[in-house]
Amino acid sequence: MINKVVILGAGNLATQLAITLYDAGVDILQVYSRTMQSASILADKVNSTAVTEVKDLAPKADLYVFALSDKAIQPVLDQMYLPIGDVVHTAGSIPANIFENYAKDYGAFYPLQTFSKNRKVDFSNIPICIESNSLELQNDLMDLAERISNNIHLINSEQRKQLHLSAVFTCNFANHMYSIGQKLLAEKDVDFDLLKPLIKETAEKVQELEPLSAQTGPAIRFDEEIMTKHENELKDTPDFQKLYRFVSESIFKMHNE
Amino acid sequence: MINKVVILGAGNLATQLAITLYDAGVDILQVYSRTMQSASILADKVNSTAVTEVKDLAPKADLYVFALSDKAIQPVLDQMYLPIGDVVHTAGSIPANIFENYAKDYGAFYPLQTFSKNRKVDFSNIPICIESNSLELQNDLMDLAERISNNIHLINSEQRKQLHLSAVFTCNFANHMYSIGQKLLAEKDVDFDLLKPLIKETAEKVQELEPLSAQTGPAIRFDEEIMTKHENELKDTPDFQKLYRFVSESIFKMHNE
Repeated sequence: MINKVVILGAGNLATQLAITLYDAGVDILQVYSRTMQSASILADKVNSTAVTEVKDLAPKADLYVFALSDKAIQPVLDQMYLPIGDVVHTAGSIPANIFENYAKDYGAFYPLQTFSKNRKVDFSNIPICIESNSLELQNDLMDLAERISNNIHLINSEQRKQLHLSAVFTCNFANHMYSIGQKLLAEKDVDFDLLKPLIKETAEKVQELEPLSAQTGPAIRFDEEIMTKHENELKDTPDFQKLYRFVSESIFKMHNE
Repeated sequence: MINKVVILGAGNLATQLAITLYDAGVDILQVYSRTMQSASILADKVNSTAVTEVKDLAPKADLYVFALSDKAIQPVLDQMYLPIGDVVHTAGSIPANIFENYAKDYGAFYPLQTFSKNRKVDFSNIPICIESNSLELQNDLMDLAERISNNIHLINSEQRKQLHLSAVFTCNFANHMYSIGQKLLAEKDVDFDLLKPLIKETAEKVQELEPLSAQTGPAIRFDEEIMTKHENELKDTPDFQKLYRFVSESIFKMHNE
């Protein structure tokens, strides 16, 4: 059973995960970050100790959670005393076996959500994707996940990588479409608020319908008349114009495959 | 005061609007559609009469609502007895003055939402964008809109056109990003359900934050390492690969302007 956890990282995901684990009764032994300031801000929130040196990490945690950026994982690993205890990372694109020369039992604990430092999210419905090389650690990770979420999945490294890629499309790229919408409205002095119910309903719709059947708009019927109008309206923003044509063609193709 | 309405059209928007007006106590005199089948299906839902010939339209409605596809508006107009009574359309991209040679008082009544025939939507929060050449009709349209929504805006034809264009990005294109996510997951036997909380939170986030500040992911920090990995993973779907690069560059540019 995992009760004493060291969190490495103090970014958006590290922050939300540490707070949620702490609220669920897990003891956050330490928060590691390269700068004392960011380590302290999070450590204070979870009644923990801030550390900035890898050599100062507590030797006997039940679990070391690498919630660092992808690039930061290896350099920290290289400084740790070996073997490390049970260890996981929270990264979509990194295979779990990045730890294979450093720890006996290792894995991934990947909450699939978009996190901001100051927006509290409800973990109870967030999919937690778990992987481990050891059945014992896997069970411990499942048990830990169950303390914060009802939505737990065993996912291998290959699938997790694909989930991360899909999340870039469905979250990062969808959000960029919202940004473009806001920019376009601002040009004509229209408030972005007018798009909010539409954005919400678009996301709500695919909670029930398949996105393919939820698709509406000029591109799916390849309505050249409206599309040409729209492209003309976008002549002052050639990037958006190209994007418009490109995404429209992609929609049309997907629906005629 | 508008009490007796003729609905022209029986598509997704016509269906949802007619049902909502009917539920709000408005008398739907007739439902017009080119085919008896689609006219009847909607007419039955709103205790109305189905018509398929323009010459059979009731002469004395308080309002004629053209909820037809953009292309279908003009041909129907050309068959109507002149002058038509008060008339609006529900189209984003068509100026209100399409009616100027046909009616004295005319306008637009544009509910900004994505509609499906069989998914009931709650109109109370849907922005209704109103325009009219006559102050009297404008007031009547405001009053009608207030009976079904709390979110009413005076929007001119130029702004409405831009709203429609923005809606293509924030709704149609965002939904296409969901479709791509689903396709990618299917390749690795991962259930689309795993993306649903992320999709929901992405839309929820911009109800409070500006989309520009809500942006996360590899593109905003132009993390070439992850981006190259992702592009390699997309090598079997060259369209998605191109889209990935293109949208990522667009995100990076927007955040470095």
